[in-house]
Amino acid sequence: MEFFLFLRMPNVSTRGLEMPASPIRKLVPFADEAKKKGKHIFHLNIGQPDIKTPKVMLDAVRNFDLEVLAYLHSQGSQSYREKLSKYYASVGVDVGADDIMVTTGGSEALLFGLFSCLDANDEVVVPEPFYANYNGFSRSGGIIVKPITAKIENNFALPPIEAFEQAIGPKTRAILICNPSNPTGYLYSEEELLQLREIVLKHDLFLFADEVYREFVYDGKKHKSVLALSGLDQHAILIDSTSKRYSACGARLGALVCKNKTVIATAMKFAQARLSPPTFSEIAAEAALETPASYFEEVVEEYIGRRNLLVEGLNKIPGVLCPNPGGAFYALVRLPVADTDHFCQWMLESFDYNGKTVMMAPGSGFYSTPGLGKNEVRIAYVLNKSDLKEAIECIAKALEVYKEVEV
Amino acid sequence: MEFFLFLRMPNVSTRGLEMPASPIRKLVPFADEAKKKGKHIFHLNIGQPDIKTPKVMLDAVRNFDLEVLAYLHSQGSQSYREKLSKYYASVGVDVGADDIMVTTGGSEALLFGLFSCLDANDEVVVPEPFYANYNGFSRSGGIIVKPITAKIENNFALPPIEAFEQAIGPKTRAILICNPSNPTGYLYSEEELLQLREIVLKHDLFLFADEVYREFVYDGKKHKSVLALSGLDQHAILIDSTSKRYSACGARLGALVCKNKTVIATAMKFAQARLSPPTFSEIAAEAALETPASYFEEVVEEYIGRRNLLVEGLNKIPGVLCPNPGGAFYALVRLPVADTDHFCQWMLESFDYNGKTVMMAPGSGFYSTPGLGKNEVRIAYVLNKSDLKEAIECIAKALEVYKEVEV
Repeated sequence: MEFFLFLRMPNVSTRGLEMPASPIRKLVPFADEAKKKGKHIFHLNIGQPDIKTPKVMLDAVRNFDLEVLAYLHSQGSQSYREKLSKYYASVGVDVGADDIMVTTGGSEALLFGLFSCLDANDEVVVPEPFYANYNGFSRSGGIIVKPITAKIENNFALPPIEAFEQAIGPKTRAILICNPSNPTGYLYSEEELLQLREIVLKHDLFLFADEVYREFVYDGKKHKSVLALSGLDQHAILIDSTSKRYSACGARLGALVCKNKTVIATAMKFAQARLSPPTFSEIAAEAALETPASYFEEVVEEYIGRRNLLVEGLNKIPGVLCPNPGGAFYALVRLPVADTDHFCQWMLESFDYNGKTVMMAPGSGFYSTPGLGKNEVRIAYVLNKSDLKEAIECIAKALEVYKEVEV
Repeated sequence: MEFFLFLRMPNVSTRGLEMPASPIRKLVPFADEAKKKGKHIFHLNIGQPDIKTPKVMLDAVRNFDLEVLAYLHSQGSQSYREKLSKYYASVGVDVGADDIMVTTGGSEALLFGLFSCLDANDEVVVPEPFYANYNGFSRSGGIIVKPITAKIENNFALPPIEAFEQAIGPKTRAILICNPSNPTGYLYSEEELLQLREIVLKHDLFLFADEVYREFVYDGKKHKSVLALSGLDQHAILIDSTSKRYSACGARLGALVCKNKTVIATAMKFAQARLSPPTFSEIAAEAALETPASYFEEVVEEYIGRRNLLVEGLNKIPGVLCPNPGGAFYALVRLPVADTDHFCQWMLESFDYNGKTVMMAPGSGFYSTPGLGKNEVRIAYVLNKSDLKEAIECIAKALEVYKEVEV
């Protein structure tokens, strides 16, 4: 009997097998290995900024004075949602506390939103390259991502309306955008948003908009929310997060915002199943709303400086193409290599420049059309200028050495 | 055009429509309304104890001294997982840090586990009554719950092995138990666990065990983990949480523990998509492992006192049947009413005794066989003895009055 026991083993699910590994995190074991060997790694692979979290946020948690760390309301506390509603008013979005559901990160907001609106085998149209985990969340619910491709030569602007029309079929239930975009940094113009509104209303689709980088727009541009467009109250679903806004990625606190009451009521059932968002995190997030405007002014100035350094530095390297991002803190960059999955792993495993190397996210993971993005990487300019400069030099050096390896 | 816009509205998903509302939280709007009217509510509906969270946990967060609230490793930090592995050794479970995945609550552990092991339309056999949200997590992934019924007359012991054999079919991939049980408080004997092992190995199924109440077992009984049974390394998946153990429900920090490396690797893809567990919560949970043994001794003594008070008090009420739970802090109680959904709502909306009333969780939500549990409620004995006594009196009074209403 005992022998028999060890021969058998149940299989994991097809859903699990098909779940894509995160392009942002799948190289972590190689990075861990490199660190063990004493290499310093510049982490440009992940949107984890080195910017300080506002002190008011951390202090609120340090001053926690209750004796029981209790559950919150499944939708998030009333006081936080009321304050959030005022915050949204300040960015041109008119929503009440009841239109807001507090979630465990933007990730959970998107998961609840997708699961509430789409069934297995339903389709969501997503301009690619897109934030890799959209694929994971969709896949976990059997939802099919229909990509339409934005081009690096066009600075990753919204694909033409005809591309949407071609992608939309009888199973299409939603369009999902990220604005400003992770991974490209592209900021949609109001004209592009109005085009999206037209498509959404024509086909009666939900419009999901991940707007977690709202505060980070550059060159005098202005961000416009999908919830600030008239006529979309029943269709627009805003995904939000405190992670990037306050450099508080570890809080894992986000929000789903929607004026369609049926969507909120449906999402509530998913929210109740997981009981509540994390209490410490909500305390921090509520305090975060008192962050002074000067904080954002300084941070935006810092990101502009980093972006300029990155775009200029990378475009000087032969064969590299780095578009100029209008927002967020990412750039999707074309490199003169055939396979960035291999190149990025090689940089961790086999390369260093003065004991240092750079971790980047291979581009292929941000596309769902097979074969695309293989010569691209996503770079998060989340490190200070001095580190960023060294990292750019390191990439330049690596590309030189890799030429010999690749052949 | 504008008029046309307001006529259309996309539909939510069938998945969302079919998602069950939580029996524990669905009456919250009625409770909120009652509170507005000045009624005091004894919350016996939810496993939110009034027991103090260990100070060492809260202090660890109060002493947070970093300037950036950063992401953690998707699997949870190495240091915490190493300490957890020592904790598990102390309860007879031999697992390494790599066999542990830190999750956002036990909820997420179960979600990742189910999604990693079961596809849509696969079946999981669950002894009912069961923790209501098992239904929700399964439903959200298209997984079908096959209930086998445990009987109140039998103190909710494990149903006979023949019932399992009848329920298991070609689509069955797993069995899911909760031990000690939420909502019944039943503690499985070692003999029952060995029966489960036999079934699981015979049919090559995964065995999920939610053991979050492990520390709370009474009357000299001992808890045994499914991971402490030999021969189940590839089959057993342990769901764990800090919520109940440390009265820290708001932490939302749990773990998935499994020696099957393929399961952990698959769950990692789901974990990477949501980035990481909440950082403050993990800091608290890591510190929690230093909680002195005396804390649990006191808490267990307190729960035994409450249980005795509840069981004795309820069984004195005419027509009420309250089995004696061997663990956790719940009892599933039969009341002399036809529809506890109506009764529980009525207690919030239309009843009070000296300005006070009791909130309980209707039993129907803990069964998936339609029609069962309609004369049962789940009571969580999470309030101090003085409150609990008042609550029992209030229930007795309510049953008297309701007799007139119901007829």
